[in-house]
Amino acid sequence: MTDGRNDNKDPLSGPRRRIDTIDRQLLELLNERQLLVSEIAGAKRSAGLPIFVPEREDAKVEDFRREAERRGLDPEWAEDFLRMIMGSSRAAQSTGLFPQAAGGPRRVLLVGGAGRMGKLYGRCFERSGHEVGILESQDWNRAPELLAGRDLVILAVPIRETEPVIRRLGPLLEPETLLVDFTSHKTAPLRWMLEAHTGPVVGLHPMHGPDVQNLTKQLMIICPGRYVERAAWLREQFGLWGLRLAEMRPGQHDEGMHLVQGLRHFLALLHGSYLAARGLRPEEILELSSPIYRAELMMTGRIFAQNPELYADIVLSEPARRDMLLQFLDHHSRLAELVRADDKAGFIAEFRSVTDFFGPFADQALTESNYLIHRLADRFA
Amino acid sequence: MTDGRNDNKDPLSGPRRRIDTIDRQLLELLNERQLLVSEIAGAKRSAGLPIFVPEREDAKVEDFRREAERRGLDPEWAEDFLRMIMGSSRAAQSTGLFPQAAGGPRRVLLVGGAGRMGKLYGRCFERSGHEVGILESQDWNRAPELLAGRDLVILAVPIRETEPVIRRLGPLLEPETLLVDFTSHKTAPLRWMLEAHTGPVVGLHPMHGPDVQNLTKQLMIICPGRYVERAAWLREQFGLWGLRLAEMRPGQHDEGMHLVQGLRHFLALLHGSYLAARGLRPEEILELSSPIYRAELMMTGRIFAQNPELYADIVLSEPARRDMLLQFLDHHSRLAELVRADDKAGFIAEFRSVTDFFGPFADQALTESNYLIHRLADRFA
Repeated sequence: MTDGRNDNKDPLSGPRRRIDTIDRQLLELLNERQLLVSEIAGAKRSAGLPIFVPEREDAKVEDFRREAERRGLDPEWAEDFLRMIMGSSRAAQSTGLFPQAAGGPRRVLLVGGAGRMGKLYGRCFERSGHEVGILESQDWNRAPELLAGRDLVILAVPIRETEPVIRRLGPLLEPETLLVDFTSHKTAPLRWMLEAHTGPVVGLHPMHGPDVQNLTKQLMIICPGRYVERAAWLREQFGLWGLRLAEMRPGQHDEGMHLVQGLRHFLALLHGSYLAARGLRPEEILELSSPIYRAELMMTGRIFAQNPELYADIVLSEPARRDMLLQFLDHHSRLAELVRADDKAGFIAEFRSVTDFFGPFADQALTESNYLIHRLADRFA
Repeated sequence: MTDGRNDNKDPLSGPRRRIDTIDRQLLELLNERQLLVSEIAGAKRSAGLPIFVPEREDAKVEDFRREAERRGLDPEWAEDFLRMIMGSSRAAQSTGLFPQAAGGPRRVLLVGGAGRMGKLYGRCFERSGHEVGILESQDWNRAPELLAGRDLVILAVPIRETEPVIRRLGPLLEPETLLVDFTSHKTAPLRWMLEAHTGPVVGLHPMHGPDVQNLTKQLMIICPGRYVERAAWLREQFGLWGLRLAEMRPGQHDEGMHLVQGLRHFLALLHGSYLAARGLRPEEILELSSPIYRAELMMTGRIFAQNPELYADIVLSEPARRDMLLQFLDHHSRLAELVRADDKAGFIAEFRSVTDFFGPFADQALTESNYLIHRLADRFA
């Protein structure tokens, strides 16, 4: 070193060397911890125990917070830290065998099983010791033999193919077979399935993409159709994979999804397309971004690295969703009047009515978004 | 324990006890690391060295990634982990004295120094050994004596008071005094300052809120006005506090801010107000949220825990910003036609043109937002 700061007379060199040593010790401990977690996960799988137990994780976090506080460290920060370690441990548990629901191995058929979502679930069923078959569009001539004796048939086909595939499949299904779908809306597909099949029916929506490393902590929406007791083993199997399950009415699901998928992605297109129309380059705007706007720009930008067909299908999907998007435009026009009139009092009145509606959620949102903003600032500022 | 899992025959109890020990060792090391960082920071302050040196931090991160990889740990994850530790160390460095720019202590006057932003910067100047005075609205009768012999006068008043305060202040300023403002737009305030004062002028915009624990890594926008060489010591002082400095034209700053502040907060009001109009409770929608929509809901919700006046001033601030918001409505109406006509081909064409405009930024956004989504999932799922 030529700047003389790292020689022995530099008062900083001693503590800096000790920090380097500490950082290596941290890595050694994290590595050992990861191996222990894998060991525990292996033992759990052999014993058929669920891999992810939220209560145990929460108890561990509480203990870690207490220990951090005793040492004068910020417990909030310590919790972030531990949850990050635990998240990474979960990601590492995506290999090996998974536990199997009671009642022995089942015969599962994935219709559209060569798609990415079908493949993900196919792997999970196989790792839990179930027999998994696939029916793709070129296999319809063999459909009767592929469907024979199946405990479960899963529809994992693109949204626009769901109805014709159900119509074609219905007459070929055995009455004992449990029919489920993975479509991202639920009212119409559940009706189609109930019309086409006389046996047990359940609507499902896995609330995650096909890129997750495993299913632990992911959310599965369940909309009961008919003879739902015949799906008890499947719910148990989902739980053993660590999925969180939420049961709801198809209408409730769909209205929420119009917002979470339809409006969200329409607004991302609108935001990106407005920047393009004004010639505002995102790299240059980043220089001026608050952490919140930076997050928004990243969430907008990500969709343009992906498939436009997919987003067109999500946004335009069905008449109810398109109606909702047009209502949103009306709402926008109404609020824009406050801007046109420079109506500060009207703006404040509208703001206050939303504050009343949001109630205590606004404070929760402030806390949670502060966390996000700090993480963004640590990582990207 | 009555479930028998923690007795000695349980194969999980050994590795679990070892994990508990590791977690305590991690906390001990983190605690010691924090103390060493404080020690280094203290030594740097005594030596007048900058506390935050980005190159050193980046070199440390590179080393940590290499060491993690050697141990079979994911280097991306290791970097997150270290940046989180370093972020917390920075937050802990908000006490004690700060280094002082060359040229000795200066005489600083904060106009609006009792506001939250004024207080934050007042504390920083004092910790660096400068003399700090305050001029509040009740102090105008003492203004000539408060302004006498000041090296620097900072305007930190609410946006709507900026112009009258500058007009009032101008005739009282000594020609040698450096005049700067903290207003969140720059074209008009810079013009007002240049008209009212014959001496050195610089427009500033600190791109952070008054709640930050310290200024390290925060961004300060600088718009040069007149005799900017007289602000060299101030730029040095900002750098010693760890601020990142970005120089730009006032027009460039303002157009970006219409988007980052104006459009962003208008859309948050629109989003919240639409949920209220449809009676969609945010707590219930959370159940259905992807991590991305969850983040959006939190970023929207947070504003309703805050002051409506502040947001009205930000959104409605000036005619150019209101024009831009109305242009955005026109753009929305145009894109909504694709939805009304269920025009998939048109949607895809629009999408592709934005993809072309975004270029490689879209991939960067995908990577950065994946990071965010994983952090959200670790912490809140």
